[in-house]
Amino acid sequence: MKKIINNPRDIIEEMLEGIVKSYPSIVHRIDDSRVVIKNAEAKQVGLVSGGGSGHEPAHAGFVGDGMLSAAVLGDVFTSPTPDQIHTAIINADQGEGVILIVKNYTGDILNFEMAKDMAEMDDIAVEIVVVDDDIAVENSTYTAGKRGVAGTVLVHKILGDAARKGASLSEIKALGDQVVAATKTIGVALRAATVPEVGKPGFELPEDEIEYGVGIHGEPGYRREKMQPSNILAAELVEKLLADYSEVPKKVGVLVNGMGGTPLMEQFVFVNDVLNLLAKKEVEVVFNKVGNYMTSIDMQGLSLTLIDLAEQQWIDALTSKVTTISW
Amino acid sequence: MKKIINNPRDIIEEMLEGIVKSYPSIVHRIDDSRVVIKNAEAKQVGLVSGGGSGHEPAHAGFVGDGMLSAAVLGDVFTSPTPDQIHTAIINADQGEGVILIVKNYTGDILNFEMAKDMAEMDDIAVEIVVVDDDIAVENSTYTAGKRGVAGTVLVHKILGDAARKGASLSEIKALGDQVVAATKTIGVALRAATVPEVGKPGFELPEDEIEYGVGIHGEPGYRREKMQPSNILAAELVEKLLADYSEVPKKVGVLVNGMGGTPLMEQFVFVNDVLNLLAKKEVEVVFNKVGNYMTSIDMQGLSLTLIDLAEQQWIDALTSKVTTISW
Repeated sequence: MKKIINNPRDIIEEMLEGIVKSYPSIVHRIDDSRVVIKNAEAKQVGLVSGGGSGHEPAHAGFVGDGMLSAAVLGDVFTSPTPDQIHTAIINADQGEGVILIVKNYTGDILNFEMAKDMAEMDDIAVEIVVVDDDIAVENSTYTAGKRGVAGTVLVHKILGDAARKGASLSEIKALGDQVVAATKTIGVALRAATVPEVGKPGFELPEDEIEYGVGIHGEPGYRREKMQPSNILAAELVEKLLADYSEVPKKVGVLVNGMGGTPLMEQFVFVNDVLNLLAKKEVEVVFNKVGNYMTSIDMQGLSLTLIDLAEQQWIDALTSKVTTISW
Repeated sequence: MKKIINNPRDIIEEMLEGIVKSYPSIVHRIDDSRVVIKNAEAKQVGLVSGGGSGHEPAHAGFVGDGMLSAAVLGDVFTSPTPDQIHTAIINADQGEGVILIVKNYTGDILNFEMAKDMAEMDDIAVEIVVVDDDIAVENSTYTAGKRGVAGTVLVHKILGDAARKGASLSEIKALGDQVVAATKTIGVALRAATVPEVGKPGFELPEDEIEYGVGIHGEPGYRREKMQPSNILAAELVEKLLADYSEVPKKVGVLVNGMGGTPLMEQFVFVNDVLNLLAKKEVEVVFNKVGNYMTSIDMQGLSLTLIDLAEQQWIDALTSKVTTISW
């Protein structure tokens, strides 16, 4: 393993310092905690997300005006502790309550729920929106039900816009559940991530194989087979996603998300195939995003997310301006 | 080689279509050319850049209001042709002339100069700003003098702001030459890029070695040695860059640029070391950017760019808002 790091034990501390020192006009750190919070305070419902590290720019890259109030950084692929999350909630609260946006992993759910209980003892109203957009498999390593993956970023964006516009805690909770239901993702891997403290790839894939339905922590997918051209890959993923809706959406948003080790060149070739397929099916694409948003360290692969955008308000929310490091 | 592509021969065409179809509100393609141009026309000096593909998001990702007027996409690691560049110039010209921002490679210089001559026969005034920010080596494969690398993106940003504010062709040419002189970059590689049509890495590096001073096409650097921790690496690169200025700058901008296969996690660990070192040397950092801006397909590695920011106007230009895909 070759990585540009110092002691693997210090990675999160040093990365976090690197983030806040590089973008002091947007975010700062709460004391010596694992919480990155936006500078611009506003009288609105607070939005807190986070989880294990290794998914950069998620989640700290999405902290800022119009998106998250704060992000909590756990160790690599490990949920932050209830205390750490509690610190984020206290600091994100502006008297209007706090929404926790949590990817559906057993450890995260447990810890975010405990932090919610702690905050409620401080008389802070808290609601949790659980994101489980990965349709590849039901139940998985670390997960009961479906996993939460790249679609989480779209949830941040739409709820962040609603919060900025003054929506109440209960309104944002209801909106969040609707957005999650409309958001579906599926991923593929060509090469597994290498966790720095482990030092070798999480799984081995032969030089000519691809794994369909892989998770963002290297969790198994649903099939391995010989590598296929981009357009064959795109056809399978688009079909699977559309089939998961009770009715094919008329208007969608598309997020092609690189896993960390996949060049933009390949992501743009792939999105071209996706958009051609959706055009043939007369699904109108009204929002697009291509790049590294929810990575798996240096995994080679990508995910495709579709979101049903029947609501004009959601489209406006996705295209509204924000001040973050990475949106 | 595993890549998410179709026929390697069609990569540029398909990638270009992927870019313009994904961001139709920002850019479009000129007919079936290799030119990506911004939608927002404005009466200003036109800014054209480009070069070989494989450096995404450069250069198409920086087309938009406040940055480039147009980008010309050559084949992978191959200069666009004079005809293709000529098409970009004609379409970028709004009667105020056009600046070409060219990275210093022999093929690019030749072809952009030929396109300049062609445009002048159409009575379009054209000036060329040559970027040669890579201080690693003098002369190199494909280059007489120093190579042009990631600092080019800062040139795009500062000149783009000046053009938007109404600077004249000669003013922007003079500013460009000043910005290039103030901008210095040096890069390292842990693993070479794989050009899709070649199918294997451009060079081999043993599993425990790093190459200092590598170019963005895999050109040789100045030393190979055993892999070092991030802070040792940062110390060498910062020292080399500062030593290249006649006087250590008081205020600088910092760009940490991932080469395509390097996770953001490592880039943020590295920038933390860089910023600690600069703080110790009492060099004030007034602008920061961390991420993939000028890549080398899937190369694992990064580059560090410093820009002397004595001029407040340059700082304002770097921090001004733009409407591009990737800034």
